[in-house]
Amino acid sequence: MIDPPSLVDQYCHGVLRTELGLGTFEAQLARTEGPPAPGTTLFDTQTGFAVRRWCPPLLGLEPHCPPARYLARRRELGTAEAGRRLLRGSGITAYLVDTGLPGDLTDPGELARAGQAEAHEIVRLEQLAEQVADTSGTVESFLANLAESVHGAAAHAVAFTSVAGLRHGLALAPEPPGAGEVRGAAGRWMAARGAGDRLTDPVLLRHLLWIAVASGLPLQLHAGLGAPGARVDRTDPVLLTDFVRATAGLGTDLVLLHGYPYHRHAAHLAGVFPHVYADCGAALVRTGARAATVLAEVLELAPFGKIFFSSGARGLPELHVVAAHLFREALARVLGGWVSEGAWSLDDARRVATMIASGNAARVYGLS
Amino acid sequence: MIDPPSLVDQYCHGVLRTELGLGTFEAQLARTEGPPAPGTTLFDTQTGFAVRRWCPPLLGLEPHCPPARYLARRRELGTAEAGRRLLRGSGITAYLVDTGLPGDLTDPGELARAGQAEAHEIVRLEQLAEQVADTSGTVESFLANLAESVHGAAAHAVAFTSVAGLRHGLALAPEPPGAGEVRGAAGRWMAARGAGDRLTDPVLLRHLLWIAVASGLPLQLHAGLGAPGARVDRTDPVLLTDFVRATAGLGTDLVLLHGYPYHRHAAHLAGVFPHVYADCGAALVRTGARAATVLAEVLELAPFGKIFFSSGARGLPELHVVAAHLFREALARVLGGWVSEGAWSLDDARRVATMIASGNAARVYGLS
Amino acid sequence: MIDPPSLVDQYCHGVLRTELGLGTFEAQLARTEGPPAPGTTLFDTQTGFAVRRWCPPLLGLEPHCPPARYLARRRELGTAEAGRRLLRGSGITAYLVDTGLPGDLTDPGELARAGQAEAHEIVRLEQLAEQVADTSGTVESFLANLAESVHGAAAHAVAFTSVAGLRHGLALAPEPPGAGEVRGAAGRWMAARGAGDRLTDPVLLRHLLWIAVASGLPLQLHAGLGAPGARVDRTDPVLLTDFVRATAGLGTDLVLLHGYPYHRHAAHLAGVFPHVYADCGAALVRTGARAATVLAEVLELAPFGKIFFSSGARGLPELHVVAAHLFREALARVLGGWVSEGAWSLDDARRVATMIASGNAARVYGLS
Repeated sequence: MIDPPSLVDQYCHGVLRTELGLGTFEAQLARTEGPPAPGTTLFDTQTGFAVRRWCPPLLGLEPHCPPARYLARRRELGTAEAGRRLLRGSGITAYLVDTGLPGDLTDPGELARAGQAEAHEIVRLEQLAEQVADTSGTVESFLANLAESVHGAAAHAVAFTSVAGLRHGLALAPEPPGAGEVRGAAGRWMAARGAGDRLTDPVLLRHLLWIAVASGLPLQLHAGLGAPGARVDRTDPVLLTDFVRATAGLGTDLVLLHGYPYHRHAAHLAGVFPHVYADCGAALVRTGARAATVLAEVLELAPFGKIFFSSGARGLPELHVVAAHLFREALARVLGGWVSEGAWSLDDARRVATMIASGNAARVYGLS
Repeated sequence: MIDPPSLVDQYCHGVLRTELGLGTFEAQLARTEGPPAPGTTLFDTQTGFAVRRWCPPLLGLEPHCPPARYLARRRELGTAEAGRRLLRGSGITAYLVDTGLPGDLTDPGELARAGQAEAHEIVRLEQLAEQVADTSGTVESFLANLAESVHGAAAHAVAFTSVAGLRHGLALAPEPPGAGEVRGAAGRWMAARGAGDRLTDPVLLRHLLWIAVASGLPLQLHAGLGAPGARVDRTDPVLLTDFVRATAGLGTDLVLLHGYPYHRHAAHLAGVFPHVYADCGAALVRTGARAATVLAEVLELAPFGKIFFSSGARGLPELHVVAAHLFREALARVLGGWVSEGAWSLDDARRVATMIASGNAARVYGLS
Repeated sequence: MIDPPSLVDQYCHGVLRTELGLGTFEAQLARTEGPPAPGTTLFDTQTGFAVRRWCPPLLGLEPHCPPARYLARRRELGTAEAGRRLLRGSGITAYLVDTGLPGDLTDPGELARAGQAEAHEIVRLEQLAEQVADTSGTVESFLANLAESVHGAAAHAVAFTSVAGLRHGLALAPEPPGAGEVRGAAGRWMAARGAGDRLTDPVLLRHLLWIAVASGLPLQLHAGLGAPGARVDRTDPVLLTDFVRATAGLGTDLVLLHGYPYHRHAAHLAGVFPHVYADCGAALVRTGARAATVLAEVLELAPFGKIFFSSGARGLPELHVVAAHLFREALARVLGGWVSEGAWSLDDARRVATMIASGNAARVYGLS
């Protein structure tokens, strides 16, 4: 009854190119601070059960078959062929890909070919800054090269993303740091950093946010779940309120990613501020059979033109598949339920489904 | 099966007397920090959809008709006649009206006549203090006049309400400020204020709370959603815990308004403290098709004798209508569901429905 | 369809040995800061309704009969016989009993005999410390005796429990306090304390946590609801994150009790850290007809091998009964619903039901 014809995955990553065994596959099902507890497995999670429900049929097996059987079939097909079958079975027609993660992950072009879909790049600000620092000899050249790199990235990327929340927490001073402050922080950071050191300095994180805001490209901010061992309340999107107010009217849209377990807060900000949007997808992969409820909670306060789907998937094409199927099913169940109760009209429900599935993303990211 | 015969709206405002166009009507559907984002409309929200569901039939149109058609019909009838039809279709039999908002809103008497209902006044403490300051020449006369005004208001109003949470946040020192502290704050405020300046000083906000507590009249405290651009966590009712404890046993009831997204916290306080009550209504207008779930979340911890209905409506009689219909439907669905599962008896469900719809408010506010 | 054969109640207390009248029975239904408000009763709560649903049939009455009738029947049977019928009707096969509460409560042996079940002791750290202080003349002997007592308790108890969150809040420094710091705090506490004074010093509370961690026995931490008049956000389990990280890899499991209204946060920690487990039961008694939803919220992020049932019951055997019945029904409804939607297989649902009902607890607490 309600089934949007295409899906834009507004935030994801590439997939691993290597063969995976049962243990290495399992390790991709969740972000944790250590191996599963004795006597437990990450397959016994909502994500694990959702993978077992949706993915085996795409590889010719029955739903809910045992993990070992699924992995055997996956190896039989080969990672590339399994990936193609999975991604093409997801219904996703466009991927916006954060390329800023380390590891042997496919790039947007490969993802597009494997999935017979469009793909566009999202540039991760912190990784861009680290790359620029690697090749800049002085603070002055670092800052000049950084500005130029962000400017250059804005020409080909569809969005920037910031993990400031995951690295520092979202309780950042809302205004742009002064030039002297930035130079001082950059100098200290460059002097102290070794190879591979990540950018965590709050002044530089804020500097990155503000040069991204100046670019006019949508800026995606990680909120809620994300850094497994960190205090999740440090990424409550409510902490962004002052930054949101400071960036109002500048012409740059802010997209709150994930949000869960604070997704009602993210939806509230999307309802209050014209330039704020909320993601409703990434949490679905984590919550599996509960996806309809989590989606419905976002739909309480967020205006329907301010909500995006995403998978947040990384590493396994199974996660793109699961996100897409959970989202479609949750959307059909939630909106369909409201139609059958008389709360919404069917026309409205279909229109809103298409907006959230692809229309809003197409408009905000300028997709064709 | 479960349909309480009357509704007391324990917190609302009057309605606009002027004709509204599509844009001015839309602007009343939500409290935002700017116009809708390009490509979006506030009609595409739970509130907008709920208005389109419940209001057109009261004006002779089919549910879910397009906004422009609804507005045309509304203009055809005229604001006053449309308001009468809407309010009389709400099922609300008593309105408790916060008269402290600016703007061309109907007063309680007009609301009563339009809706063929009772109406009673709620006095907003901060506005009362601002009015007293406008006509007081010295700090001493201000403080004396204020005490007298609160005392006078208590004689005709059914409750006081405080927006201290929206103006400052609920993290206020719990004890009454000392007399010298109050005089100092009042002096600074009166010396600095220009015409129309709002009272935001935390010492004076606390002083107002405590003179209201001394009056014995129920005191309604805004919590949760309310000030659109402010950090919503600053109005988490949990921040009131120490004030609640400080006022225990004094004989004055505290009513936590709105609450959402922290309504479970408000319900907890209503469960723990004999003199605390929780509102379950105002959030329903904001969350529309999700009203049953939000109501059920309040019903987890709040004792059934400690819950009130309200619309929180302002400006549009459509919002009174929507609140009332969403509440009745949510109540019937939630309690009816528990009856059909065997969790509650039908007698209990009907009794509790009547308590929340009107009985609790009648008892606490002393309505006839 | 889904009905686990046995239940381990991983956290509860004994029951009162005395006869109870209507008022004394009612007072056991909730933890409050005073008697019910005028015109209200604690029977009009989710807990009260759940007791009236599940308990009368076990004493030969119809469900939902009036409280006075139920109490008359209870007195007719006598406390001991009523307790036997109730506990034996709960389906609980093992009780883990926190013996650290004051009052005339049955001990684990009595509970076992009355309920025809196993019972094991949980030792409450703070009470143990207070007992040791009562019989120790000097700081040195106190600290030595305390270490020995914890060591001794570990030999017969199945777990330790800490109420540090309820006494101080969970925002405790995560690392073990230094020996000098502990001696200083112990000296001040012993010098100042009168008979019956409770241990609330944060240094000593942390010292207790760390000697319990060293014992290797599972450590249960109270989080969420618990101390009625305290700020509930001070027991948000997210505040434990740094302590959790500090204890990772030491071989001691941490169990987050209650959690509600922050049970999604507790589930998140159980998902991220191998040594963290989440309780899903105690909140059910408080939320009654909403139990299925609260359980489902825990099942979003917590791996299925990391979740325990408990009743959290104290004083009334009715609370053990209600917890057990609400849990079984919620489990059947939630998991059964997922099976009927095709989200889970029936085999998986049955396996997970058994894990949560008893298997996980048997494994972690080493029950036979």
